[in-house]
Amino acid sequence: MNPFAGGSEPCLAGCTEADLLGRIRRWLGAACPPPPHGIGDDAAIIPANRRSLVLTTDPVIHGRHFDASVTPAQAAAKLLRRNLSDLAAMGARPEAALVSLAAPPQLRLDWLEGFYRALGRECRRWAVDLVGGDLSGTDGFLGAFLTLTGRPAGRRLLTRSGAREGDWIYVTGDLGGSLGGHHLSFKPRLEEGAWLAARRSVHAMLDVSDGLGKDLPALLPAACRAVVDASALPVALAAHRQAARDRRSPLDHAVNDGEDYELLFAVAPGAAARRLESAWAKAFTTRLSRIGRIEAAGRSDPRIVIAGETDGLESALHGYDHFG
Amino acid sequence: MNPFAGGSEPCLAGCTEADLLGRIRRWLGAACPPPPHGIGDDAAIIPANRRSLVLTTDPVIHGRHFDASVTPAQAAAKLLRRNLSDLAAMGARPEAALVSLAAPPQLRLDWLEGFYRALGRECRRWAVDLVGGDLSGTDGFLGAFLTLTGRPAGRRLLTRSGAREGDWIYVTGDLGGSLGGHHLSFKPRLEEGAWLAARRSVHAMLDVSDGLGKDLPALLPAACRAVVDASALPVALAAHRQAARDRRSPLDHAVNDGEDYELLFAVAPGAAARRLESAWAKAFTTRLSRIGRIEAAGRSDPRIVIAGETDGLESALHGYDHFG
Repeated sequence: MNPFAGGSEPCLAGCTEADLLGRIRRWLGAACPPPPHGIGDDAAIIPANRRSLVLTTDPVIHGRHFDASVTPAQAAAKLLRRNLSDLAAMGARPEAALVSLAAPPQLRLDWLEGFYRALGRECRRWAVDLVGGDLSGTDGFLGAFLTLTGRPAGRRLLTRSGAREGDWIYVTGDLGGSLGGHHLSFKPRLEEGAWLAARRSVHAMLDVSDGLGKDLPALLPAACRAVVDASALPVALAAHRQAARDRRSPLDHAVNDGEDYELLFAVAPGAAARRLESAWAKAFTTRLSRIGRIEAAGRSDPRIVIAGETDGLESALHGYDHFG
Repeated sequence: MNPFAGGSEPCLAGCTEADLLGRIRRWLGAACPPPPHGIGDDAAIIPANRRSLVLTTDPVIHGRHFDASVTPAQAAAKLLRRNLSDLAAMGARPEAALVSLAAPPQLRLDWLEGFYRALGRECRRWAVDLVGGDLSGTDGFLGAFLTLTGRPAGRRLLTRSGAREGDWIYVTGDLGGSLGGHHLSFKPRLEEGAWLAARRSVHAMLDVSDGLGKDLPALLPAACRAVVDASALPVALAAHRQAARDRRSPLDHAVNDGEDYELLFAVAPGAAARRLESAWAKAFTTRLSRIGRIEAAGRSDPRIVIAGETDGLESALHGYDHFG
């Protein structure tokens, strides 16, 4: 849906801020607690909690993260889920969100209604309180900036650091071709992330959002490289479909496309890894792939080596670069 | 300083995201704790704290909150201080911030350096840890969206609700003409806010950011109006200067201009208010003005009455409207 009024559709230009805020609170519904715990005061108050606080932020921007082919409900779901995926990668559960909207006068009110109603539904679905935000006018730019707070799901949070030489590397789900639809329909791996953080054999974790090739180095300890087995990579059907349309291989898509929103983690090798695999199979239907291993490496070695039949994949492991 | 490259100045277009992130962490310096407590993981971890959490968010947007006449350091200071003012109005102290930048390829690197270096200095000055954020590309829009967390300064947080019929209304500092310079140089009233929240005679508080006329109704209980004494309003010198240039009166500017970032609060009348005034004079040099009173009102009465010599001020108490 095109967010901008072309002719007679009611749009932001006809609203006062107070009117708009009233509508938004109505659209958000039960997702927004009464003030001072929700929208309506200078700041929102979250009751005390003995656990650590986990904070993350990610936007959706028109022309970058969504366009006129996307429904406002899909844009809203993507906004919240991108942030949920970051909490999942820490082993955290969500608590509260603030959303800042920057929008031009020609933004259609029915687009905005669809967006906030869906955001309210998504917040309830994932047990998030929408507690505050901001509305700012722009000359054409449309973006929504969400900040999400969370708390540890269990006793332990899992960071990107902590992987060791010899660890196996695992990834959830499938990789590549996300723009074919996955980027609008993915489910953040909150349950899986909480489960993994509770297992001591899992040493480090992150979410794959810019592509395996770009994100994997963050998992590697100093003086180590990742040796990835090409045949073990869970290449998504969508990556094959994309490859059939362009001149890139399915493997290239799996390694370099962004927006997978899967969990990538390092596990102690041997019996611990085997126990994890069999417990996983009982707990989840989510695909789990052991894609490689962390090995010692010299300074000048590449940080990632793709071993096996690489199907023409060049050494260009770039992922998605926002400004390049 | 014009944020956008006109010719040969180095700008975002020449940067990879990894390069840019490295620069930003260097520019922020000590304001950014090491991961996982600062930038560098999927989310930031804030150690457990037994107090409630207070959350607020406000952006600065090029063309709205700053322009080419403003230095990047001023834009950064304004960004943080706008949010600090919201915490001040709750009686909270800041803890951690996340900042999302949305910027086009032509953004000058020296502008960005000036912005982040100043943001780092400001964070240290106000004891804020800058713990995370995001970088997104745009087609021309430039904005920075900050979310700030805080904790109660003392035992009590002060909300907008709680004022009673008969309460006196007070405001700190001066009002009006902020665009003459105050909007770039104001000091958030953190100490004053914490002090006020500790006094039981203060019933409710908020910060004046959209103009007294627009913000004051939020302080009023149901079936009440504010009767403001025109002669008691602390009209800023800048409001007089603005009035000398346009056809509006100084009082009009004091009531309707935005961006004052002062505290507006309701106090139990009588001896409690007198004690507060004399204790204030010993604690602060900040101006304190008793500007009016909360009175019972009928449904059809205006919510604000300006009594006394109103110097041509019309009943249009509109404040600043972002979309009107």
